[in-house]
Amino acid sequence: MNGYTENKDDLLKRLRRAEGQVRGIARMVEDDKYCIDILTQVSAVTKALETVALSLLSDHLSHCVAEASAEGGAVADEKIREANAAIARLVRS
Amino acid sequence: MNGYTENKDDLLKRLRRAEGQVRGIARMVEDDKYCIDILTQVSAVTKALETVALSLLSDHLSHCVAEASAEGGAVADEKIREANAAIARLVRS
Amino acid sequence: MNGYTENKDDLLKRLRRAEGQVRGIARMVEDDKYCIDILTQVSAVTKALETVALSLLSDHLSHCVAEASAEGGAVADEKIREANAAIARLVRS
Amino acid sequence: MNGYTENKDDLLKRLRRAEGQVRGIARMVEDDKYCIDILTQVSAVTKALETVALSLLSDHLSHCVAEASAEGGAVADEKIREANAAIARLVRS
Repeated sequence: MNGYTENKDDLLKRLRRAEGQVRGIARMVEDDKYCIDILTQVSAVTKALETVALSLLSDHLSHCVAEASAEGGAVADEKIREANAAIARLVRS
Repeated sequence: MNGYTENKDDLLKRLRRAEGQVRGIARMVEDDKYCIDILTQVSAVTKALETVALSLLSDHLSHCVAEASAEGGAVADEKIREANAAIARLVRS
Repeated sequence: MNGYTENKDDLLKRLRRAEGQVRGIARMVEDDKYCIDILTQVSAVTKALETVALSLLSDHLSHCVAEASAEGGAVADEKIREANAAIARLVRS
Repeated sequence: MNGYTENKDDLLKRLRRAEGQVRGIARMVEDDKYCIDILTQVSAVTKALETVALSLLSDHLSHCVAEASAEGGAVADEKIREANAAIARLVRS
């Protein structure tokens, strides 16, 4: 069981749409489409992936981190440390 | 007691430095400094504030959220919901 | 001719790699992989797409915008306005 | 003359407001305010500084870069290279 189990279908739908968007961007480059139109699509897929990340992180905090904290100890500390590192990577990416 | 109590001096030092940096940027604009040099300083203070935010958030998860989760119930759920909203604001800012 | 014509192969290589990364992330979700490991991959692909965007934008400024500015007039103004809007979308995404 | 000369008053007003916001955040830390409320203010000032940066960059492209491109040559290339580096710093900060 993972934090995102309940949202799995939604996540997969979003990720398949994002995959199609990236493929569409490659096709735009192949077809020599206008730079600005390509950039608009890159911003859109970046935002879509950001939404996926925030959803995964939210589920992770609500389940994995909350449960580990309820148990306490070294595992809880490690979960928190790991979540903080993931948040820093997200904020900086 | 707040999550950041132990890091209070470090946070205050960083925030005072950031305040000085913003004041320095205003002075550069007043003195008609070159746009690109001003932009470099704006990126620097933005990164400094991002570090402050990640430090606050990390302390918040390690203390407030971890303790609320250990107690469980509605307060714990609310803390997690609140932390997720703060993370989303950070990632999107 | 587009600003990115000379970098087309490199852009296509990066975009195909990003497409594969997004497909890999979907597979990780399907296989119930650990949330934090999935998040690491999402941050990686987001950074990769950011690099694609910066490369497209750089080529656009060096070619389309520079050439339009050399000609001047309303077309030049429009190119600059359009580039500024694309930069704002990127910075905010 | 700089690209931002016409917007100087507006920029200075925004920067002084941002300086006050950063000082306010330091005061919140001193007064042991709640972490999440502090984070909300950090996100707000980060967004405000992002707006300052986009405004400076937009003026820079519309004036300095456009004029250098109209003249052409090595100075124009250098302005474009410099602008691209500033955009990359902004997108990554």
